[in-house]
Amino acid sequence: MAKVGIVMGSDSDMPIMAKAADVLKELGIDFDMTIISAHREPEEFFAYAKGAEEKGYKVIIAGAGKAAHLPGMCAAIFPMPVIGIPMKTSDLGGVDSLYSIVQMPTGIPVATVAINGAANAGILAAKMLATSDPALLERLKAYSEKLKNQVVAKADKLDEIGYEAYLKQM
Amino acid sequence: MAKVGIVMGSDSDMPIMAKAADVLKELGIDFDMTIISAHREPEEFFAYAKGAEEKGYKVIIAGAGKAAHLPGMCAAIFPMPVIGIPMKTSDLGGVDSLYSIVQMPTGIPVATVAINGAANAGILAAKMLATSDPALLERLKAYSEKLKNQVVAKADKLDEIGYEAYLKQM
Amino acid sequence: MAKVGIVMGSDSDMPIMAKAADVLKELGIDFDMTIISAHREPEEFFAYAKGAEEKGYKVIIAGAGKAAHLPGMCAAIFPMPVIGIPMKTSDLGGVDSLYSIVQMPTGIPVATVAINGAANAGILAAKMLATSDPALLERLKAYSEKLKNQVVAKADKLDEIGYEAYLKQM
Amino acid sequence: MAKVGIVMGSDSDMPIMAKAADVLKELGIDFDMTIISAHREPEEFFAYAKGAEEKGYKVIIAGAGKAAHLPGMCAAIFPMPVIGIPMKTSDLGGVDSLYSIVQMPTGIPVATVAINGAANAGILAAKMLATSDPALLERLKAYSEKLKNQVVAKADKLDEIGYEAYLKQM
Amino acid sequence: MAKVGIVMGSDSDMPIMAKAADVLKELGIDFDMTIISAHREPEEFFAYAKGAEEKGYKVIIAGAGKAAHLPGMCAAIFPMPVIGIPMKTSDLGGVDSLYSIVQMPTGIPVATVAINGAANAGILAAKMLATSDPALLERLKAYSEKLKNQVVAKADKLDEIGYEAYLKQM
Amino acid sequence: MAKVGIVMGSDSDMPIMAKAADVLKELGIDFDMTIISAHREPEEFFAYAKGAEEKGYKVIIAGAGKAAHLPGMCAAIFPMPVIGIPMKTSDLGGVDSLYSIVQMPTGIPVATVAINGAANAGILAAKMLATSDPALLERLKAYSEKLKNQVVAKADKLDEIGYEAYLKQM
Amino acid sequence: MAKVGIVMGSDSDMPIMAKAADVLKELGIDFDMTIISAHREPEEFFAYAKGAEEKGYKVIIAGAGKAAHLPGMCAAIFPMPVIGIPMKTSDLGGVDSLYSIVQMPTGIPVATVAINGAANAGILAAKMLATSDPALLERLKAYSEKLKNQVVAKADKLDEIGYEAYLKQM
Amino acid sequence: MAKVGIVMGSDSDMPIMAKAADVLKELGIDFDMTIISAHREPEEFFAYAKGAEEKGYKVIIAGAGKAAHLPGMCAAIFPMPVIGIPMKTSDLGGVDSLYSIVQMPTGIPVATVAINGAANAGILAAKMLATSDPALLERLKAYSEKLKNQVVAKADKLDEIGYEAYLKQM
Repeated sequence: MAKVGIVMGSDSDMPIMAKAADVLKELGIDFDMTIISAHREPEEFFAYAKGAEEKGYKVIIAGAGKAAHLPGMCAAIFPMPVIGIPMKTSDLGGVDSLYSIVQMPTGIPVATVAINGAANAGILAAKMLATSDPALLERLKAYSEKLKNQVVAKADKLDEIGYEAYLKQM
Repeated sequence: MAKVGIVMGSDSDMPIMAKAADVLKELGIDFDMTIISAHREPEEFFAYAKGAEEKGYKVIIAGAGKAAHLPGMCAAIFPMPVIGIPMKTSDLGGVDSLYSIVQMPTGIPVATVAINGAANAGILAAKMLATSDPALLERLKAYSEKLKNQVVAKADKLDEIGYEAYLKQM
Repeated sequence: MAKVGIVMGSDSDMPIMAKAADVLKELGIDFDMTIISAHREPEEFFAYAKGAEEKGYKVIIAGAGKAAHLPGMCAAIFPMPVIGIPMKTSDLGGVDSLYSIVQMPTGIPVATVAINGAANAGILAAKMLATSDPALLERLKAYSEKLKNQVVAKADKLDEIGYEAYLKQM
Repeated sequence: MAKVGIVMGSDSDMPIMAKAADVLKELGIDFDMTIISAHREPEEFFAYAKGAEEKGYKVIIAGAGKAAHLPGMCAAIFPMPVIGIPMKTSDLGGVDSLYSIVQMPTGIPVATVAINGAANAGILAAKMLATSDPALLERLKAYSEKLKNQVVAKADKLDEIGYEAYLKQM
Repeated sequence: MAKVGIVMGSDSDMPIMAKAADVLKELGIDFDMTIISAHREPEEFFAYAKGAEEKGYKVIIAGAGKAAHLPGMCAAIFPMPVIGIPMKTSDLGGVDSLYSIVQMPTGIPVATVAINGAANAGILAAKMLATSDPALLERLKAYSEKLKNQVVAKADKLDEIGYEAYLKQM
Repeated sequence: MAKVGIVMGSDSDMPIMAKAADVLKELGIDFDMTIISAHREPEEFFAYAKGAEEKGYKVIIAGAGKAAHLPGMCAAIFPMPVIGIPMKTSDLGGVDSLYSIVQMPTGIPVATVAINGAANAGILAAKMLATSDPALLERLKAYSEKLKNQVVAKADKLDEIGYEAYLKQM
Repeated sequence: MAKVGIVMGSDSDMPIMAKAADVLKELGIDFDMTIISAHREPEEFFAYAKGAEEKGYKVIIAGAGKAAHLPGMCAAIFPMPVIGIPMKTSDLGGVDSLYSIVQMPTGIPVATVAINGAANAGILAAKMLATSDPALLERLKAYSEKLKNQVVAKADKLDEIGYEAYLKQM
Repeated sequence: MAKVGIVMGSDSDMPIMAKAADVLKELGIDFDMTIISAHREPEEFFAYAKGAEEKGYKVIIAGAGKAAHLPGMCAAIFPMPVIGIPMKTSDLGGVDSLYSIVQMPTGIPVATVAINGAANAGILAAKMLATSDPALLERLKAYSEKLKNQVVAKADKLDEIGYEAYLKQM
């Protein structure tokens, strides 16, 4: 069965990265999650990226902050899609992470999502796998329906109680 | 057979978007290309995005500039992956296009590539399809090998003639 | 009577958007307020924007953050003015929302106000309606006079007690 | 009849500002155009802004670059809508003009359009006037239809000749 | 005797602006401080700026945030130097204020200091007046000496107790 | 008589810096102009800045680009006002020069003008000297009048020939 | 023995700068640390930078914020490497410090590390000295090994307890 | 003898990178120059970085643009200093390259120079080697003297012929 690899460079990224795992779990997609620093342990990183295809990974989700090389280096080695999550940074807000991940040279794309957008990374991985998995595609459509219904419920409530009451109960 | 839809909001984006088509062609992937403005013809756009799954599209590649809504609106309707290409802009360099495409809210990811990164959008679409197409995966690996060999050839030449001669013949 | 539609993509924008409603209420302008996500419920959004003219809306005020497509997509469908409010974002400060709203292509303007500038969106809507409503224009002038008098009162107090005392009682 | 005032701070902005005038002309809206610098001739500027209502202006379109005060100062004096056009600048790309125009304080909104977005400023002025002018609203809808048809024609041509031929004839 | 006018657009700027007043007081320079909004009360503002020379002001210090027009409009009317202080803003950090103040067109300079740099605005005003006031120049030199001695004292203490002890007592 | 020192770090800044000299010449202000690099010849720079008061300089105008330290280091040594001109840079547009010049720490202000704003630096120096020189103040007022009349003449011409003819003859 | 000079412009930078000292201590490198402001005490600064070679310094680590001139001015005088640490700033996040330090003109490089990257400045100084000190090179390799092992330990723990348990104990 | 490795990811960087080589040549420092893409040929890159110490490299100079991973990945493997040169980019001016190179995580510093600052990278490498090579230190001091004399000669010429004549002959 198709599997997703989730990797981050530091465990400080865990609270964000967990959201990707939560989505995959909810959508019934098998995944592994680990911590590997391309900078501090380049050999371990290399082994990880080179072994990913054999382990059955079809997509890698990589999160990193600042001079965020992890997603791009995964994409240099792993032949299938790599999704990059730019971490918010305390000084530059994450624009450094974003540029380091999205501005890849020709030949080595990283599918970049929003700053701290780990839930979307999980959804995007699912969408990729759904290109050949009709059952997963149905689960994705149901998931979207659920998101829609959450908004509809809020709109109904606003309609019912008015914006001033709505504000008070937030 | 899996098909890719390429869409742009204006034909001024064609010189960039053509590079995505060139890559798909080289990798033997079937695709359609069209021009639809989500802003100027919202109904036509809606029909396009809603009909994409039925036409057999597995991935949509959408390019747009400035307040670039086309990729995000495709992603709101089409249930499989949408790849967004931020167009370089003459005033802000494309950072406006990049933010408008990559900063999507939870639930609706766009797989964003570099500013003007249309060739990479083509490669990324191929990588997505390769998750279930071993023959395509082999063609992708050969394509990467070709890119690598181009660099090796340049390094060999530099090694042979020295940097001053190399510079002169550029 | 002329009516204003206020729409936001998420109820997390409510504390800001309420300021637009407060201004319209104070100026005696009729309005509706709702929550619709162009991304999560594109069909509902479409119906909303297409039905707005028939419901008597003369202006739509739309607030959105990050890749803020809601104002621009309203402007693509609704034939009268759309006012866009870029929401402040925790990572990029709202510059992403601002670019996504203001950098619209030729043909589809969005009247953009400051980041989190919802009160100004309400005032701007009133100014638009005042182009054909002399009584509203008078109320707007009185409103401006009130704002002016608030500043004058502060200047008088500063003049009276001096800046050091003024600072202490802030 | 409702009239629009177009004002710019320097005749170097004329090539851009003329596009606003062209749109108003095409939509049959009466307008005046002048050059007034709020910085170099503040008294003349004041007289202009204070006299605008009496001259029958319902909307003012103001374009300015760099520390672009003209639109904001118009909005401080003229009680109906002011549309601001941030001029592209050679050093900062126009982000300076944009911030100086859009980031107005509470009470004094400027309806800001895109950098160099003068055509959109003309359309936005028309949309404002169309809130009370059904004939103008019809002309605006026809104008939008024309813009749509231009895109459709390009899509048809692309469909007919293919992207490679399309590129060659650009 | 030469006098300095200190003006701000809103009393929310008072905690910062007070630092300019403190410096002027310490250096024995006479000053007035007031609150005037160029946007909310343009006529009062005009009267202020036009009357400043007659009141004996030689320098105006103006602080403003966001689309900060106050310093530039002072400089358009008052014939002697205007010092502008860009206020830090909660969304853009003050880069909006900075651009709106510093990027003035040819003919109308504003002497801009750092974001929130009100103490420096006071010192700069003093330096301007010291070009024709040798006694003030001596007081300024003594003031600089005092600043220097504060640093020297800290360096001596660091030298004495070491950085680890220094850190603990901070 | 009061004298102004104009200094730049590289003769590549000369085409911009010459505008400051032109203004001083037109306003009848005595000045010296030289090239000194605070980075390449720190001792010569030090001697220059320390000797400036004795040479009769009342104001120093310093232009520099990129990590532009020249104005700030002048301000650290020279006790009267230093005006800084941030040079436009080919990569970052001059925002690097601007930050390096304007963001000075407390105690050491630099009166910063716009990117490439050398003419304004000359005018600002004149305004500083005019605080104690009524004849110069009159010349400055006449200079402003001249700038105003240039705008008025353009407005009159636009009024006479219309914007389409105006555009053609630009 | 080779020595490193650590210098900062203000003791408010001490909590960051101490990390450079901690690293040097751990790696057994001799260092001095002091506070000198290039702006407030230029003569003391000059003496420091000119005397550094004689005191046996082989590298200077200089930290500064905003218009951060200290590292660049050290590099203008001291003939061996200067490492610059851009301090995070409360308004611009440190991008001002970064540009002021890294964008040095030809001839006067500053080896710039990340915003607030003082630990890395210490490591970089050690790497420079290790080019001629094999024992230090070994200690550096052991230090890197230690950093690597910290990541490995975290990955092992994640593998053992799973991401949900990992998150809870953070 | 100490050797420097110069590496770039693409031969399009050669015109800039050649300046680093020119400086090393002028200062009599032995160097190798090659082209290796960390993205397109990760294994070759790995072999290069791991073999660098054995080949006698004491410093590596690495230039890269956009999501510039080459310098950081060299620093992850090579135990002595890596100097990073951010290449100017056509869309973002090089701020993407700068952030990707300078914002390295703790443990793995890259000594970053200015955008396109290859000459400074050469000088910085020489300064590093000069920490243990007194003869090279003397050559570096002579090199600085030469740079200084170039400025002095220009200042003398300006002094002699005046700025207007100077401008004409540029």
